[in-house]
Amino acid sequence: MSDPIRVTVWNEYRHEKANEKIAAVYPEGIHGAIAEYLRELPDLEVRTATLDEPEHGLTEEMLEATDVLTWWGHRAHGEVDDAIVERVQQRVWNGMGLIVLHSGHLSKIFRALMGTGCWIKWREADERERVWVVDPSHPIAEGLGEYFEIPKAEMYGEHFDIPPPDELVFISWFTGGEVFRSGCTFRRGNGKIFYFRPGHETQPIYYQAEIRHVIANAVRWAAQPRGQYPTYGNVMPVEDLPGYTGPDFRGHPDEVVARG
Amino acid sequence: MSDPIRVTVWNEYRHEKANEKIAAVYPEGIHGAIAEYLRELPDLEVRTATLDEPEHGLTEEMLEATDVLTWWGHRAHGEVDDAIVERVQQRVWNGMGLIVLHSGHLSKIFRALMGTGCWIKWREADERERVWVVDPSHPIAEGLGEYFEIPKAEMYGEHFDIPPPDELVFISWFTGGEVFRSGCTFRRGNGKIFYFRPGHETQPIYYQAEIRHVIANAVRWAAQPRGQYPTYGNVMPVEDLPGYTGPDFRGHPDEVVARG
Amino acid sequence: MSDPIRVTVWNEYRHEKANEKIAAVYPEGIHGAIAEYLRELPDLEVRTATLDEPEHGLTEEMLEATDVLTWWGHRAHGEVDDAIVERVQQRVWNGMGLIVLHSGHLSKIFRALMGTGCWIKWREADERERVWVVDPSHPIAEGLGEYFEIPKAEMYGEHFDIPPPDELVFISWFTGGEVFRSGCTFRRGNGKIFYFRPGHETQPIYYQAEIRHVIANAVRWAAQPRGQYPTYGNVMPVEDLPGYTGPDFRGHPDEVVARG
Amino acid sequence: MSDPIRVTVWNEYRHEKANEKIAAVYPEGIHGAIAEYLRELPDLEVRTATLDEPEHGLTEEMLEATDVLTWWGHRAHGEVDDAIVERVQQRVWNGMGLIVLHSGHLSKIFRALMGTGCWIKWREADERERVWVVDPSHPIAEGLGEYFEIPKAEMYGEHFDIPPPDELVFISWFTGGEVFRSGCTFRRGNGKIFYFRPGHETQPIYYQAEIRHVIANAVRWAAQPRGQYPTYGNVMPVEDLPGYTGPDFRGHPDEVVARG
Repeated sequence: MSDPIRVTVWNEYRHEKANEKIAAVYPEGIHGAIAEYLRELPDLEVRTATLDEPEHGLTEEMLEATDVLTWWGHRAHGEVDDAIVERVQQRVWNGMGLIVLHSGHLSKIFRALMGTGCWIKWREADERERVWVVDPSHPIAEGLGEYFEIPKAEMYGEHFDIPPPDELVFISWFTGGEVFRSGCTFRRGNGKIFYFRPGHETQPIYYQAEIRHVIANAVRWAAQPRGQYPTYGNVMPVEDLPGYTGPDFRGHPDEVVARG
Repeated sequence: MSDPIRVTVWNEYRHEKANEKIAAVYPEGIHGAIAEYLRELPDLEVRTATLDEPEHGLTEEMLEATDVLTWWGHRAHGEVDDAIVERVQQRVWNGMGLIVLHSGHLSKIFRALMGTGCWIKWREADERERVWVVDPSHPIAEGLGEYFEIPKAEMYGEHFDIPPPDELVFISWFTGGEVFRSGCTFRRGNGKIFYFRPGHETQPIYYQAEIRHVIANAVRWAAQPRGQYPTYGNVMPVEDLPGYTGPDFRGHPDEVVARG
Repeated sequence: MSDPIRVTVWNEYRHEKANEKIAAVYPEGIHGAIAEYLRELPDLEVRTATLDEPEHGLTEEMLEATDVLTWWGHRAHGEVDDAIVERVQQRVWNGMGLIVLHSGHLSKIFRALMGTGCWIKWREADERERVWVVDPSHPIAEGLGEYFEIPKAEMYGEHFDIPPPDELVFISWFTGGEVFRSGCTFRRGNGKIFYFRPGHETQPIYYQAEIRHVIANAVRWAAQPRGQYPTYGNVMPVEDLPGYTGPDFRGHPDEVVARG
Repeated sequence: MSDPIRVTVWNEYRHEKANEKIAAVYPEGIHGAIAEYLRELPDLEVRTATLDEPEHGLTEEMLEATDVLTWWGHRAHGEVDDAIVERVQQRVWNGMGLIVLHSGHLSKIFRALMGTGCWIKWREADERERVWVVDPSHPIAEGLGEYFEIPKAEMYGEHFDIPPPDELVFISWFTGGEVFRSGCTFRRGNGKIFYFRPGHETQPIYYQAEIRHVIANAVRWAAQPRGQYPTYGNVMPVEDLPGYTGPDFRGHPDEVVARG
């Protein structure tokens, strides 16, 4: 009925090439594992992009044709070009959805959009994670039970150094004694952002049914109707406007510049 | 593709029967004017209900078969039966969406869900209202320009005595010097609530294209996937549970009661 | 320098009289344990009130002279008179702070102010609770470390059926696998509300230093400057007002009614 | 009783030197007008700093000794050194309050903390502004009436391109038909931020009693208790920790790094 949602799955794609153990878990890369599932969904149209492609695979054309971008990075955050980060940020402001996964919390793009350090505590001890739904009315939690579990997870612990999220969908419990705000939404300009904690390069988390389901829910939630943008700038002085006749007249945005 | 959203348009329906001038504006009642438009939308299935029907038209069966309820009331808030108010509140908690219109701000159901007095300032002076979009990323603002106008409106002014809304979508400007948080979302249990200010019994506001469009957007936003509810109550003591073997065991919700 | 904050510590005070074990923990009642500490603070002026006093100890005069009310109840929520609940609610709307403790989540007053069921999961298994600070900038977290622990706690688990809190200050971790939003703020009218989870009648939690410190922080946060209230109601039509001369005139609140 | 709050009033201080008309309004600079009032308050200790001082007057020592920084800039945002912006941002994350005034909305520091473009509409037509209090419970609104007016204001209109504010304290009405979220709070790390719209270089707004009162309220609200910081980084694996004995043990932050 409606146009498909155009998703671009971005991945740093270094771990999988450099480490045999990780390659065994994600032979097609983490982006491959995520895209594989999203491609099964008839309302989505899925492409991938990675760090080592020209412009990191994120050309103007590619971003313009992307409704929702998912982002996984870890050890090469610093290699992402500042100009591309700014380009992605502009595209978010203009309405593109952004799903930031796991270690993407320290990516340049997420930090630029948050305005905070985005630091966490962490521990690799293959402990259990239980992800609790704390907003059962939220579309990103649709179809889940009250919680789901990840048998062996890398722990992320509070304080998670983000602005207070607009909506808090998930809170994680870890065996070792920590909690984490694992599913958080944010709005920036016309764009919607979802941070989703689970996912680690050494564990098959992106094959787990609940994880895949949440990512698909988030993609649909973050997808915007296209083409509706505010304008900014100088609006003509009231008294200079033709037809100004009194109390209820207001300046109109003749000279303003659209963000889109 | 998916099931239609089942909308019930509720109206006090007294003004239109008692006052010729109002009857001239809304010959089929305010509910008739709202339902007329919603019925044109293929993804909605629309019924109406009014105060003077048995159980105000809001039987258990009717509510159970309602995904989103819209509410207009004004001079007979006090005649709405407390038991029905409680029934509607329970249904919201279980996931029904609720769209509260204009003078519905003082309805028993809205006040019960807010926990505040929900008072406002008001004035009838046929002044102009300009409704500004302040969250352009919100699905309820989809398809609108930066603002829209109501040529002759009853004024509602701040302070609007509500909890801080979860999301603020619209702010109104009035000729006479007031502002108002005109489009506000709230979550209560599994239910999503939208308060939308415009609309008055003496003005043809519910025929205006932007108003109708916003109500339709709000209905779609408030409609929930059905049947996903938290459980509450006592969960078994850890030590009594069969198979308790150590650190990462957790009680399960054997004895709990589902809200749904 | 400034006037002391007038605190009323309210307690159901039934458990302590009916159960020897509980009486041994709280010989002066739970209110006694809380008031004992608050009385050490020079900026507070502390009284207590209990369910079985006339009007539950919450007369008009008492409430009028209360800047912040703390509330502990458990098994007799239903015996609190509806008229007193409404009186307390009105006083909160007019600016009184309210600190709701532990099992007070199901009190009539908290449910009336929230508009939700306020249900939880729970378990008595003397498990460990770790209370994490997730908003280190919040005055209620002042003076705490990153977390504090309660060695033996009654568990409260999500879903906690409240509106999304305005501010989330604490999240609890429990041995058994649950998490809980343990410190939540809400605003209703001119009043500020803080829900604080820890505290159980069989455990000496209200003697624990961190718990007492948080309650004192919350009292100071919830105390309002006195005497500043919005007004509500009809404001005169623009055109009838003396001196109406054109574009920037606005109705003034001549006929309105103050909430305070 | 307690230590004074150490305020630094920062000003671009270019307009006042370059333009006679502006110099006539602010002979001691905008910072001078703001500091003049704040110096009358016994709980504040006030210094000033300006763009053309070495390091813009914002040395490490200066910032470390600043509890709250107020920021006014307009035409030279681009001349503020990126390294100083980063230094201020770090200091905010570590707990310094920040009050951003009027055209400071486009300053590098505000945009870096917001993660958005922070654009607005604007018009210079000497129109009237009415600033409405929409959160009467907020300490920044303490002592105000329901609204206050600025007789001749530069207009700022929505859409104001910021993240949804944590708290919305003021909404402005303008003669010409616009509204604006004029008083907004945000939290970033341990720091609290307040954006306050009024104020223009050609109008004596920083001498107006209500404006000064709001700035003083905001300074007190944004001032933090000193010295409480989260830690971040790797926490030891559970199984390596000495004394690990079972179910309720949790890793502790032995190896972490404090942000402060």
